[in-house]
Parts: sequence; structure tokens; C-alpha cells
Amino acid sequence: MNKVKVVILLSGGLDSTTTLYYAKSKGHHCHALIFDYGQRHKRELRSAIAVVKRARVPCQIIKIRLPWKGSTLLDTRTRIPEPRTLKQIGQRIPSTYVPARNIIFLSFALSYAEAIGAKAIFIGANAVDYSGYPDCRQEFIKAFQKVVRTGTKAKQIKIETPLIEMSKAQIIALALKLRAPLELTWSCYKSGRKPCGRCDSCRLRRRGFAQLGLRDII
Amino acid sequence: MNKVKVVILLSGGLDSTTTLYYAKSKGHHCHALIFDYGQRHKRELRSAIAVVKRARVPCQIIKIRLPWKGSTLLDTRTRIPEPRTLKQIGQRIPSTYVPARNIIFLSFALSYAEAIGAKAIFIGANAVDYSGYPDCRQEFIKAFQKVVRTGTKAKQIKIETPLIEMSKAQIIALALKLRAPLELTWSCYKSGRKPCGRCDSCRLRRRGFAQLGLRDII
Repeated sequence: MNKVKVVILLSGGLDSTTTLYYAKSKGHHCHALIFDYGQRHKRELRSAIAVVKRARVPCQIIKIRLPWKGSTLLDTRTRIPEPRTLKQIGQRIPSTYVPARNIIFLSFALSYAEAIGAKAIFIGANAVDYSGYPDCRQEFIKAFQKVVRTGTKAKQIKIETPLIEMSKAQIIALALKLRAPLELTWSCYKSGRKPCGRCDSCRLRRRGFAQLGLRDII
Repeated sequence: MNKVKVVILLSGGLDSTTTLYYAKSKGHHCHALIFDYGQRHKRELRSAIAVVKRARVPCQIIKIRLPWKGSTLLDTRTRIPEPRTLKQIGQRIPSTYVPARNIIFLSFALSYAEAIGAKAIFIGANAVDYSGYPDCRQEFIKAFQKVVRTGTKAKQIKIETPLIEMSKAQIIALALKLRAPLELTWSCYKSGRKPCGRCDSCRLRRRGFAQLGLRDII
């Protein structure tokens, strides 16, 4: 698939940024889709915007408010979990799970892709070094692919998940090879001047860099 | 399934209003979900709100703006098609198709259902007397059901489509039996003081009433 329009779901984190640069490296015309969904780590939005500017790709920002919360990632009165060991991460669905988040994101991406005639949607879902969210796994992506086939006019839009079976270290290695601007990304589930270093996402990221013998660059 | 929480997608039209009253008749605790998505027939929102008030069910209104349009139902610079014959309706996907609309609506409904612990989502999709939208057919609903199973924490939420195989006349007959307030509903693809009488939706509705030997009540 060369020189075709594609949509990229971009959070501003390490995985989605690497995915954007991966799609760019394939020569696709990338259109980024960014969500302001009331996440408490609003800081990632700034990163997402910095990344699209650096990558020089057009983007759309969608604002959504879920009145029902249902996640520690949306509700600032709750505490973001801080796992004691890395082994605990991904064992079960944590409280940071946002109900149906990737389903919502993919459905907007699908609408966007249909409207602009894009041939694929790239999502940086990863089911190896991840928090255990069900909507990051291959099984879900496959089911969503069938929704595309049966429920849209375009039918053939492909959901691409280049990182889904990679470890965090492999993703970082790929990002470095692609010269993705990791220094602009934000992975922490909290906002602040610096990443907290203690949430799932910070720990997985730190270990990824450590496994490559590197220190993180943010 | 009795006395359980359920979510109802409510547009303010005939089908979704009948669906709400059907779910109520089963004794469910209904929570309506209404979308302000930039539809040019904004008039239906007033109907949806009037219906939830009459039905005395709680509701949430979600505001969405799709920056990409891609449908005559979103773009006021375009013309809503007016089929010359009833036979033309549903033969192919018309320009009023909104890319991935029901997928977006169902994904929000799923998030809502997960967050409040609802057991089912009711949608008034119909694949008999309809405009030919792919996201109204059984095949799509089945695919989306698999997305629920694979991509959410709740897994078991059921997508209920009580009207999917009914004719418009059958739906109207059911609505009358359930005493659904059809006089409050709005089906026309245009806004205005009165339905246009010429779009797909107006024509299908009028024929439904006619087949029962009735005149519409709005």
C-alpha cells in the first residue's frame, strides 16, 4: 500500500507517535486524529500537537465529553494506581480503563477515513507491554475490522496495528530508527511538569528504555 | 431480562421512540442517549427531549461535531434527495448516509452502559423500510456484538434491535399498542415547522400509516 491517504490515531504518547512515523515511512499521506476527551493527563494533548507539527501532517482535534466518567483517567477525585511491581501490570483490567475508549476513537477514525477516502486507520495498540485494556488486543481489532466490512459504505478500510505484538523496547528501537521525536511525547497517566514515574505507563516506558541500555529522553 | 438497567439510543424519530416504549414495557430501567451531532434536522432533538420527558426516563445528551461532514445530512449546502418513487428507497446507500454514524452512537452507548452497569443497549435499527444504510442491518449488529465481547470490560452487554425485521406499518402498530407518543416524534431529514413529505424518511413513514389505514398524527 503506497501513497495512499491514511488516518492515524494520535494520543501524543510513545506508541502512537511511533505509529505515525511508521506510516509516514511507508510513504502514506497521514491525517492525524487527536482526542480531547477529558483525560486528566491533558498534557498529552500538547505533545500530540507538537508531534503533528514536527511531522508536518494535517490533524483534526475532536472534543468529547463523557458525562459518565467510569475511569480514574477521567475522574480527578480518584487515584491513579501505582503498581508495586512490573509483574502486576496487565494482569487484570485496571481502574484507568476508560469504557469503550478505543471503540469510540476507532469509530470517529472510521467516519473520518470514509469522509476523506482514506484506505487505512493506524492505531498504536499494543498487547505486550500494556496496562491490560481489552481494546488493545488483536481479537478486538479483528472484531472491529468486521464492523468496518459490514457497517460502512467504504467497507475496505483496513485497521493497521503495526506495534500490536512488539515489546516496549522493540517499539522504542523502531522509533529511534524512524527518528520519531520521542522527546516530544508524553506517556504518563498524570499531568504535571514531569512524568510521575510510578503509573503503569511510566514504568513500562522506563523499562523499555532500560532494556535497550538507554535512559529516557524526556 | 427484567428490571435491569438498559441504554436506549434515541433520535426523536418514530423508530427510536417505539424502541424506548418497547424497552419500558419490558420493565427495564431505561436511560436514553441523545446525540446532537450537527444534523441539519435539529428539530429531531426537540422531539427526543419531549419524548424522554413524556416517558419520564433519565437522559444524557452528547454533543459531537464531525469536522469532515461527508453527508447531505450534515452539510446544509447540499440537497437532501427526494426519491421519485418508493421503490427507489433503500436500493443503494443514499447521500444522507453519515459515515460510521451508528458505530459512533453505539460506541458511546457502550461506554455509557459499561459506566452505569447497564445490561443492554436498545437501538431502533430497521432493515426493512429503511434508507439502505449499512449500519442498520443485522449483519452489522452481529459484528458490533463481537466488538462488545472482545473489546470491553463488561463483555456481556447485549445489543437489542427489536424492530430490525419489522415493516414501518408493523412498527407503527406496535407504537400505538404501547401508547408511544408518536405525535411528539420527528422523522423528516429536514428541519422546519412541518415535515417535508418528500425525503426517504417522510415517504416511508407516510406509507406505514397508510398501510394501516391511518393518517399521520403530526
